[in-house]
Amino acid sequence: MTDPLAGHRARIDAIDKQILDLLQQRNELASEVIAAKIAAGLPVFVPEREEAKVAEFRASAERRGLDLDWAEDFLRMIMSASRARQSTADFPRATPEPKNILMVGGNGRLGSLYGRLFTASGHQVRVLDQGDWDQAENLAAGIDAAIVAVPIRVTTPVIRKLAPLLGPGVLLADFTSHKAEPVAEMLAAHPGPVVGLHPMHGPDLANLSKQLMIHCSGRRPEEAAWLLDQFRLWGLRVSELDPERHDKVMHQVQGLRHFVAVLHGSFMRSSGLTPGDILDLSSPIYRAELMMTGRIFAQNAELYADIVFSGEERRAMLLDFYEHHGRLADLVRNDDKEGFIREFEAIGAFFGDFAQQALVESGYLIHRLADRFA
Amino acid sequence: MTDPLAGHRARIDAIDKQILDLLQQRNELASEVIAAKIAAGLPVFVPEREEAKVAEFRASAERRGLDLDWAEDFLRMIMSASRARQSTADFPRATPEPKNILMVGGNGRLGSLYGRLFTASGHQVRVLDQGDWDQAENLAAGIDAAIVAVPIRVTTPVIRKLAPLLGPGVLLADFTSHKAEPVAEMLAAHPGPVVGLHPMHGPDLANLSKQLMIHCSGRRPEEAAWLLDQFRLWGLRVSELDPERHDKVMHQVQGLRHFVAVLHGSFMRSSGLTPGDILDLSSPIYRAELMMTGRIFAQNAELYADIVFSGEERRAMLLDFYEHHGRLADLVRNDDKEGFIREFEAIGAFFGDFAQQALVESGYLIHRLADRFA
Repeated sequence: MTDPLAGHRARIDAIDKQILDLLQQRNELASEVIAAKIAAGLPVFVPEREEAKVAEFRASAERRGLDLDWAEDFLRMIMSASRARQSTADFPRATPEPKNILMVGGNGRLGSLYGRLFTASGHQVRVLDQGDWDQAENLAAGIDAAIVAVPIRVTTPVIRKLAPLLGPGVLLADFTSHKAEPVAEMLAAHPGPVVGLHPMHGPDLANLSKQLMIHCSGRRPEEAAWLLDQFRLWGLRVSELDPERHDKVMHQVQGLRHFVAVLHGSFMRSSGLTPGDILDLSSPIYRAELMMTGRIFAQNAELYADIVFSGEERRAMLLDFYEHHGRLADLVRNDDKEGFIREFEAIGAFFGDFAQQALVESGYLIHRLADRFA
Repeated sequence: MTDPLAGHRARIDAIDKQILDLLQQRNELASEVIAAKIAAGLPVFVPEREEAKVAEFRASAERRGLDLDWAEDFLRMIMSASRARQSTADFPRATPEPKNILMVGGNGRLGSLYGRLFTASGHQVRVLDQGDWDQAENLAAGIDAAIVAVPIRVTTPVIRKLAPLLGPGVLLADFTSHKAEPVAEMLAAHPGPVVGLHPMHGPDLANLSKQLMIHCSGRRPEEAAWLLDQFRLWGLRVSELDPERHDKVMHQVQGLRHFVAVLHGSFMRSSGLTPGDILDLSSPIYRAELMMTGRIFAQNAELYADIVFSGEERRAMLLDFYEHHGRLADLVRNDDKEGFIREFEAIGAFFGDFAQQALVESGYLIHRLADRFA
């Protein structure tokens, strides 16, 4: 038996090899571009240039009868791989002279990541971690900036212990995931420039391209400008926010999200259905959701407890959420389908056009997930 | 000012054009392969062949120093686009002669999708929808199979109304998202072959490649084999499950998931933070979660009410969930961080190795999401 499609398959294989050859050549060129950018002190990721390139690629794809959204994904994957290679290379430096940066909690996962990136950009990095306080005075001598990247529960004591060691011109920053309290503490403890930061990403990333960094102005923001420029050179999007506003949104984005994930895991455990039982019957969406829940339990319990229990305001929000659940549970208890439909429609009105956008964007996601994980 | 990188950029652009040319050629070849498969009655999606192709592509990528996981994604995207084009074409037929299929609720979204696919595979499709019951007897005459694809709340009355019109050899099937009750109803109302089906996907798909179809054996499963074969030819994964077991898992996968999404949307509305406020501060993960919640409210309220309120057992599970929430809320109320950590660790032990798998798989997802939506 000869396969009647063997000829076609061989030609497809030959095309795939040519594509791989071209990707290899493209990688080499992209590496040279990145090296030239670093030499010139230019940012690796320039959103406007990337969008122009995407638009041009879509137009080229259209002329060839290819699906446009698909072509865009395809190009974004290629560009993202170019940036990912950057993670092992050097980065441009935002300042003419290297800065001396003290990473407080620099052996933690997030502290190490940023320490590595500062070093790869040619700055001098010193680490002050739990066991180093006897040498803190030496470590703090002659630094330009100190960044507090410690667990949320010790942020305030660390700021109070650290601040007296800093010269009045030293920039003091923190990476805590809430902002009102740490920024107030830094302003009270340190008379020099202060900026509150919240890196909106986890520590397990090879590079920070396109990730989000929130900053809250503390004091003398012009003296923090170089630090934000450095983040931009790594590809981060940098966005300013009022600390109180930041915290209000974060209670939902971080506090509620993680609480609900723990609630989900906890209920699964009580119901006796294992992840394996459920995975076999999962659509790509639910699979993704289960993975998002499951990932939490591969991580540190205390870290999540700190997030969920971070302050009175957050705990009050979580208790409001429970009370709110009670109102929806009443609809279920009373078999009040009409009430549920009314609530559903009110939420739809509140969401407005976003619901349609969400349908489109999640539809894309579902397709990608089905490609990869089904 | 001349751009010192202009030469490099021009060469990258030239490579991108060559890649697009090759993709166009690859598409043409793939279309010919698909046409030949249809002519030969072969399935479009053959998992083993796809996995072999992926392994070979990874090896080729490795020889060129490319990232392997990235290369795999890249190929899966190309293959998925090949399959997607299939959605506008004809499909192979699982039977030597066309079958006569009555789609009950055939004007609904899911009914239309399957009706279109049966037609594209060369079967004869008739539609019996709400207004057609006066012609039901004619429509049911001479059919080989009837598939009930109606809203969950009318499934039982529709089965009871339909069954007396069916000859004893007609295959009776349903698409309801719970299975114990409809399968029991079909067995009671119809003496012929019966199969319960649950297509585990939404209606807004261009093609069903790699989607999951659950089937629950009812009576004379050998007479339903051609239907399952037809699903496989469309690329569906087909998996058998006991109806009670199916329903137990579905209470969590569908009932709980949708209830929690409505709870999330409802709490957002009550807190006055709009999706826009939250999106600005969202990591790719949370953005994905918000899109999964938001998509629901672009859809029909009654449909979701039917899912959440589908039966006593599901409502009892949702009330258990509320009670369970109460226990976790007590930890928050009492600021009992230790208790929370104990619960977290118990869940981690229950999840076992899955947590690590989830960390890896969701890490992939987060990267893809960041590429596309950041």
